[in-house]
Amino acid sequence: MAKVFLPKGTRDLLPSAMNHRLQVINTVRGVFARYGFEPLETPAFERIETLTGKYGDEGEKLMFRILKRGEGGKRGEVDAALRYDLTVPLARMMAMNPGLPLPFKRSQIQPVWRADRPQKGRFREFYQCDVDTIGTDSPIADAECIAVVHDTLTELGLTDFTIRVNHRELLRSLAVSLNATAEESSLLVALDKLDKVGRDGVTKELIERGFDDAQTDQLWRHMDGEPIPGAEAAEQQLQTILQLAQDMGVDASRVKLDRTLARGLDYYTGPVFETVLNGEYTGSISGGGRYDGLIGMFSGKGDVPAVGVSLGIERIFMLMEEMGLLGESQTSTKVWITVFSEETRPESLKAATALRRAGICTQVSTRTGKLSKQFKEANGRGVPYALVLGPDDITAGTVAIKNMVTGDQWSGSLKDAVERLGH
Amino acid sequence: MAKVFLPKGTRDLLPSAMNHRLQVINTVRGVFARYGFEPLETPAFERIETLTGKYGDEGEKLMFRILKRGEGGKRGEVDAALRYDLTVPLARMMAMNPGLPLPFKRSQIQPVWRADRPQKGRFREFYQCDVDTIGTDSPIADAECIAVVHDTLTELGLTDFTIRVNHRELLRSLAVSLNATAEESSLLVALDKLDKVGRDGVTKELIERGFDDAQTDQLWRHMDGEPIPGAEAAEQQLQTILQLAQDMGVDASRVKLDRTLARGLDYYTGPVFETVLNGEYTGSISGGGRYDGLIGMFSGKGDVPAVGVSLGIERIFMLMEEMGLLGESQTSTKVWITVFSEETRPESLKAATALRRAGICTQVSTRTGKLSKQFKEANGRGVPYALVLGPDDITAGTVAIKNMVTGDQWSGSLKDAVERLGH
Repeated sequence: MAKVFLPKGTRDLLPSAMNHRLQVINTVRGVFARYGFEPLETPAFERIETLTGKYGDEGEKLMFRILKRGEGGKRGEVDAALRYDLTVPLARMMAMNPGLPLPFKRSQIQPVWRADRPQKGRFREFYQCDVDTIGTDSPIADAECIAVVHDTLTELGLTDFTIRVNHRELLRSLAVSLNATAEESSLLVALDKLDKVGRDGVTKELIERGFDDAQTDQLWRHMDGEPIPGAEAAEQQLQTILQLAQDMGVDASRVKLDRTLARGLDYYTGPVFETVLNGEYTGSISGGGRYDGLIGMFSGKGDVPAVGVSLGIERIFMLMEEMGLLGESQTSTKVWITVFSEETRPESLKAATALRRAGICTQVSTRTGKLSKQFKEANGRGVPYALVLGPDDITAGTVAIKNMVTGDQWSGSLKDAVERLGH
Repeated sequence: MAKVFLPKGTRDLLPSAMNHRLQVINTVRGVFARYGFEPLETPAFERIETLTGKYGDEGEKLMFRILKRGEGGKRGEVDAALRYDLTVPLARMMAMNPGLPLPFKRSQIQPVWRADRPQKGRFREFYQCDVDTIGTDSPIADAECIAVVHDTLTELGLTDFTIRVNHRELLRSLAVSLNATAEESSLLVALDKLDKVGRDGVTKELIERGFDDAQTDQLWRHMDGEPIPGAEAAEQQLQTILQLAQDMGVDASRVKLDRTLARGLDYYTGPVFETVLNGEYTGSISGGGRYDGLIGMFSGKGDVPAVGVSLGIERIFMLMEEMGLLGESQTSTKVWITVFSEETRPESLKAATALRRAGICTQVSTRTGKLSKQFKEANGRGVPYALVLGPDDITAGTVAIKNMVTGDQWSGSLKDAVERLGH
């Protein structure tokens, strides 16, 4: 076999990418845990009937289907599909575990799969990072979604962002006020494009969809601040959530009530959130909201309050890389141990062991001989330090450390070297 | 929908399991990194032609096949399958990235999928933890496989184990010595069962497979130490590897040359390793070896030296749980913040924020009112501390901490509480 390929739209995550990803995910996991969200993992695939009817026609088309295995399967029979998001598996899990103490707060960081047409920066396998609180309608849970996003982005160094907040009830009242109850979803679809096409674009689309001038004028009056009749409770709820978020340390200047935010047509029932970076960056890096109906679809026991938020971690990786926030290092290895000859190899290994036991990531050269070649190996991988242990060093009971960036050398006991490299 | 199920042979990993798994995997990842193995991830599925012909008929049957998506796919056409192990994807990746500096040392911790008949402790989705070194025949790479397993198990507290080591060349010479070159694989299959069926069982199976008494007698003489003609180079290589492993700090009493170890019929070409816990525990918890031919199957450029080892992490989780090595805690949350009333809630949130900013995992009660009920919530989840902030505390500028295990209470400033709980 001479030609080998990856499946369309997938990629290998090589060490240079993985080291950065692990570092980012570690930060994310830390913030999630500090807010009391506990880790969950669900299987990569679900029974086909668990997933169908949850994502609309478009989603259905993009699902990867798996052939049934084992006895009793008809030829070509499909009984499972790869996870399409992390929310439906959570709802399924909650329905299957009615004994879990509520509210149940879970975090989940796993890949999902969608057979989208691959394009730059868009893959058929990508990670999602979600937190959700199930079983309480307390606004604390909604506010925590905002606070978690706020703290995560800040900690990652993405400090210039805006968390937009709206309420689905407010949008419903808006449709009523425009006398367009039956056209609510047309209204949301058009409004959702405001960022991209501006007011004129939205107005044009609404007129095409059958709205009249009186309706669009009324729309913009509401958007400019005219109260929406019947939306008082939703407005009040949003104010409470924003206040609680501030009590949790969220910077008020980073959160904005935005009556145009529609976000997700189908399953949201209450507050919705979306986060964008300020400046030239378009597209959201986080989104979520309250969805009190979804779990009931599985348990058959009526509404279960639920609210959650998802970080667009793949976009976050990409933006952090563009903005130079990920650091230079392509490697987790800190020290490259050179080997002078087979005779001195045990001493080199002894040094490696001492460094490793002190928690320092260390590689031993598998080649002996010319030091310059061994330095080149370390350099080519971006390893910042090399340790040299020649016959003279061994006689003197010392090791030499070379800083591969500055070229500086240092010589001393192995113990001191471990101490020095440990910082 | 009233009944919901998981796909056969799969499971949800709930927080109580996940917290322990993350802790174990963190330890594993740490040891891998200290030895200079760099993280890699590959896609969950591979093109079907990448996987077929690599795992034998049995493996082929157990592979989960995925239907082709998008235009041009015939109805029912399969073009991909879920990852069956981490080694073939590594070989495929190496063939696709000829520019990677060699030796390339990678670690990989990801799930694999096999449609085995589900049974207790055996799932169709399970994690593998592998390290491999590609592109060098240096015995350092083989010795590191032994050292990584040694250090990982020791660090996890599984200290009573034996790493068995053998060499495929030695087994080949054994077949020659028995005049059974054509029956080498029969010999290995029978010998591999020695642990389970004893010498009599192996002898019986060999006789059934057409071996004669002279051959089986010769076999046991070799097993008792009679040198195997032609195996000198392999014996010498193993001695070098064992010595290097000791130079890396491996405890010699934990490694054993074992001429009966056959391990994996197909792709190993040199040293092979297998680790078992001593005592009543059966079955291996780690295995690996040298496989110099596999990558060439993809690159078409002849043999590429490669050696690696895999930790049986699912068995390790299970054994650690049985042996009580995983600790009590079902939760990562350390402090449960009670809320006296809506009026005092901002103060409770302020306390939560202070704890979180100090890195302490904290949950805020979404209920107000009766303290005893809120304590019960904390208790039911195994959260070790509760923080109480009533109107009197607020007036006095103090908070109270209750140790949920001992019942002890402490009262002081928020700053002191953060300090105290941070330890």
